[in-house]
Formats: sequence, structure tokens, C-alpha cells
Amino acid sequence: MERNPLMDRSFAADIQARIDNKTKPLGALGLLENVALELALIQSQGLSQPVEQIEIRKPTMLVFAADHGVAEEGVSIAPSAVTQQMVANFLAGGAAINCFCDGNQIEFKVIDCGMLSPIDVLVPDFKHHPNLIEKRLGNGTANFAKQTAMSHEQMALGLEYGAEVAAQSIADGSNVLMFGEMGIGNTSSASALLTALSTLELEHCVGLGTGIDQEQLNRKINLVAQGVARCRELDALDTKAILAQVGGFEIVQMVGAFLQATRLKTPVLVDGFIVSVAAYVATLIDEEARDYMLFAHRSEENGHKFVLEYLKAEPLLDLGLRLGEGTGAVLALPLVKAAAQFYNNMASFESAGVTV
Amino acid sequence: MERNPLMDRSFAADIQARIDNKTKPLGALGLLENVALELALIQSQGLSQPVEQIEIRKPTMLVFAADHGVAEEGVSIAPSAVTQQMVANFLAGGAAINCFCDGNQIEFKVIDCGMLSPIDVLVPDFKHHPNLIEKRLGNGTANFAKQTAMSHEQMALGLEYGAEVAAQSIADGSNVLMFGEMGIGNTSSASALLTALSTLELEHCVGLGTGIDQEQLNRKINLVAQGVARCRELDALDTKAILAQVGGFEIVQMVGAFLQATRLKTPVLVDGFIVSVAAYVATLIDEEARDYMLFAHRSEENGHKFVLEYLKAEPLLDLGLRLGEGTGAVLALPLVKAAAQFYNNMASFESAGVTV
Repeated sequence: MERNPLMDRSFAADIQARIDNKTKPLGALGLLENVALELALIQSQGLSQPVEQIEIRKPTMLVFAADHGVAEEGVSIAPSAVTQQMVANFLAGGAAINCFCDGNQIEFKVIDCGMLSPIDVLVPDFKHHPNLIEKRLGNGTANFAKQTAMSHEQMALGLEYGAEVAAQSIADGSNVLMFGEMGIGNTSSASALLTALSTLELEHCVGLGTGIDQEQLNRKINLVAQGVARCRELDALDTKAILAQVGGFEIVQMVGAFLQATRLKTPVLVDGFIVSVAAYVATLIDEEARDYMLFAHRSEENGHKFVLEYLKAEPLLDLGLRLGEGTGAVLALPLVKAAAQFYNNMASFESAGVTV
Repeated sequence: MERNPLMDRSFAADIQARIDNKTKPLGALGLLENVALELALIQSQGLSQPVEQIEIRKPTMLVFAADHGVAEEGVSIAPSAVTQQMVANFLAGGAAINCFCDGNQIEFKVIDCGMLSPIDVLVPDFKHHPNLIEKRLGNGTANFAKQTAMSHEQMALGLEYGAEVAAQSIADGSNVLMFGEMGIGNTSSASALLTALSTLELEHCVGLGTGIDQEQLNRKINLVAQGVARCRELDALDTKAILAQVGGFEIVQMVGAFLQATRLKTPVLVDGFIVSVAAYVATLIDEEARDYMLFAHRSEENGHKFVLEYLKAEPLLDLGLRLGEGTGAVLALPLVKAAAQFYNNMASFESAGVTV
């Protein structure tokens, strides 16, 4: 398989020297210094010298929503109908993700990747809502505990759809993307993918989601195990086949969006467990994708720490969040902006006349 | 000694019920839910029912700057002259704290609590800078390793000055304060205070500051021990006497500012090690002060985790910062705003038609 070359890091020492000459003790801005280095590297790709200024333009949150056949088994605190109700809440502007996007001047779109039914079945007025993007792959996936979640064609189309959504946001002027998700049952799908595509124990990859009890957790583990067992019969390196087997429509589209952001050299601020699993799957398809990822937060979901380890990621926030929707990513965006602010505007020792 | 009554928490259950009825799983916003509860409680003091909206008005960063006699012993990576140079950098707008205040629409003031000389000795034009507040208690403290850092009169005037500064910011329209500090040698003073006013081991309270080596650290430990030894001869409950013995002019004024914020029922977002020690000292003088504190971040400075434990504080950020200036507090402010945003604007299950 042909691989893209990895990101060019030849300016790293120059950029680090610029950071080290700011009026502060060496390394004193901690993780923000890493973020500034990565953003400056990304925005310097293809240039003859490192950028003087990091630009954060029209940051955009894309929330991918879909339903999951496995939800019929009772693996969540809520029924599948809640996916659509929450998408209606997003479009009405009443969800947590709306509050945080509004507060931080973040563009917001929700993508119907394949809910049980289109949004206008619930709220007719929302069919042409400016924040809604329709990229439906079906009326929810099949129950992956019993059969393949989606066909190869649906999976391939999902990657294309996701790529189109990311490309459109970038064409509309965004140079920092964030992905979020909504889909009752989608931690089960993410757990199955992570287990099937890693050497992790299944029990480490399955967690409480938004708050199930121990009995539901045991059922969830058994169901995930059934999907994973079918994946074990496939070529373990055939990432896309495993994605079709136990993935979700929103997860597949996020993978496509990560791959497109990589091609367009655009950073993505990665949210919690489900988005991180999509990020991990993207890196298995294109190793370079990792170079364009920044990590927002540590979710309370059990498997998140493991996928973060696989991705060698050190997230900015650890607030005990377990909400999804992309809330961790939008809450971390002010820190990404702060990294750009100090890189762009902070004085050097010489310019400030400080004699350390 | 007469004590103020502690903050009235009788609305806590009502406010928690309001938070729990937002369209999210119970507790899913983690630490932000605690922040929303505390802010709503603070802003409901004296009212007949809990506030419907949390208001964040004109958040203000007050950076308290002063010099320390103990710096002559070489306990820092920089000489005392750097305090004044950095204050000039603050007034010129080139420091990290400026970048983050500008980026987050935060009012910024620096208070000269007693640098080696007034700012106009270095930059004549800055004497009447609108962001400078002159509250000088002297030309730096005496070397606390050898003698008392300041007189009882200086300490008492420092508490008054700090109270005036806080009261003025609140009179100017701020209802959320943040304190920062600048003062070469001030981690030594903070370490001495913490050791003298707690049962902690001295070695746990002394750290690397902004980056000294092991030899300097050993010297710093010995110097702090000399100041602490004199404190041991005082009444351990005479907080103010110990504050005069090993404190700093900026630390004393921050204590006064915390006490005034408490009297005026105004929350303070607490920065790193030195500000947290001032916060701790304030709680020893007025236990109610703790009720008006929110905690921004965990500093890399060794003693910070211990003072946070004493204050039963769980900070919002853990970014590996060790810069001071109040940078941790201003970086955490967007999370405090986010807590208000979800409390104010997020839909309830009923209003959004979500059937969980």
C-alpha cells in the first residue's frame, strides 16, 4: 500500500528556539508549548521558513450522529430515539455543545450519518436547518452482535462522505476542525473496534458509557465480544473490513474526515473515547493522520486511556467529562488559542529588555 | 476572635437539581458542574431563591509584584532586577499574562507592592500607566533568612492595601477576580509560610521554582529553614505574626485581597503555588474565605499539591505550568465561563423533549 510521507518536521528546532526565547523560564508553559510547536509545524508545511504567526481561523465543530442496531440489546441508559431527540436539541441550540460553541465563537454543524429516521420525521422544520448536513448511510446500522454492522459499500461511501464534510468546512474557511458524536450505543461500537484492532483485553475497552449499571456492563461486554469474535476471522490488518463489521455510520464518517484533514494538512482537535477510536482507526489507514491531531481531554470512559496510549497522546484537559457531543474538544479550544497567542504575541528576552 | 458565618449553602440542593435536569447524563460535565454549583451559590447569597443566571462580569487579573531580601542569597534562576523588568514587560504588554488576558477579554492590573525601586526608575513613562497601581510597602522585604521580613506595621498596611485593590476592582464592575504574582524569590517566602503554618515537612514545601538546580535547592531549603525556625518561636496560631516574619509584600497584599473578596462575596479564581499559599493564609484568618475560592490549576511546583490538599481543592487544569504571573488562572477562566454558559443556557429534559 502506498503511504503518504509523514509530516515534514525539519523546522522543529527553529520553532522550538523561538518558543524558548519568549520571556518565560524554559518549558514553563508546559503542554501549551507542545501545542504551539505542533500548530506552527503544521502551518509551516510547504513553506521555506517557519510561520511567524499561528492563525486560528473559523474553528468548526462537526458532530457526527447515527444510530446503532446493537442499541436494541439495551447497552445504553437511553433508547435509540434519544439520538434523534438530541440532534433536534442541537439544532434548537439547547445542548451542552451549543452552549460551549456559542461561548467560544465556534462554528457548529451536525451531520446525520444515518439515524433511525431523518430529522424531519421528528421536527419537520429542521429538514433545511442551516446547521444540518445530511449524509445518511441508512436507517442505523445492523446489530453488530449478530451480523456485520454495514456493507462494504456503506463503509466506503461513509469514508467519502466524511471526507466531503471535512473538505467543505475547510473550503468554507476553517483551519482547525473538531469532531464530536451522538449515537445511542456508539461506545459499544467503539469498544469493539478498539478491541479488534489492538492487542488490548476486551474488558479494558468496554466501559460504563454515560452511566449503565454492572448488569448492563456485563451484557455489553458479551455483545461486544460477539462482534469481535467475527472480526477475529478477518485479516487483522484489513482495517476497513473490521470497520464495516463492528463500526458505526458516524464513526466511519469521522475516519473519513480525519483522513481528509490529513490530506489538506489541517489540524483536528480530538474529543473523547469515540472520536479517539475513530482517530486511531484513521492512523491505521494513514499513519500521517497522527501528525494532524491535537488531543483535547481525558474522558471518564474506561477505554479512553488505552487508546490515548496507543496514539501517544497527552490531552490538555482532565475534567471528568463523559458527555460526548464533542464537548471536551470545544472546552479545550481556548487553550489551543492561548498557545497561538503566546507564540504570536509574547515578547522575546531581547525585545523586552529582560536580562535572564 | 469573632468569625464571620460561613457561606449560606441552603440553596445547594435546588441548584444541584437544576444542574441535574439539564439534557446530559447525571454528572457528565464533571468538574464544570462543581464550578457552576459554587458560582450559583455565591451569586445567590442574600437572595430569596437561587439565581436563574450566573453572571460573569468584567473578570479581572490583579498581578501583585514585589521584591524579596532573600533573593540576595541566590535562591532563584534570576536576580531581583528581573522583577522590575518583568513588570515593565507586563505594562508594555509583552508577557504571557498579557497574551492570555488579551485573548480572553480579561482586565489586567499590576500592583507594585514594593519592588526594589518604583517602575519609573527603569521606565519613566510607566509611572502613570493606567494598568499600574502603586501600593508600595518598601523597597523589597528584608532577608527573612536573617531577620523578620517586614514590620508588623508593614504587614497590617499590606492587608489594607490588598483589600483596597480588591474593593476597587469590584467597585469598577468586576464580579470575578484572579490574582497573580511576580517577585524573584517569592517561592522561598511561600514555602516558609506554608511550612510554618502547617504540619508539613519543610522538604515537601520547597521546590525548584522556575528552574534552579540541586545545589541551589539545598541552599534554598537551608534558608527557608532559618526563617521557619524563627517562626517556631512565635505562637503558631498567630498567623499575622508569621506572615510578617517570612512573608512577602505581594503575598501579604494578596491575603488582604482574598479577605476583602470574601467580605464582598466575590469569587476568586486561584492560580498556582504562591497565590494558593496566600489563599491558605487567608483561610487561617477567616475560614469563610475558602467558600469564595475556585481553583485554576495544579502547578509543577512541588509544594502546590500539599497546599491544595489543605484547601481541599480540585483544580480545573493540569498543564505542567510553572510560570506564575497568574497564567494558570486566566487560562482556566474560559472553563469558568463554560460552567456559567451551561447553567444559564442549556435546555432541560422537558424543554428539549428528550425522554431519558
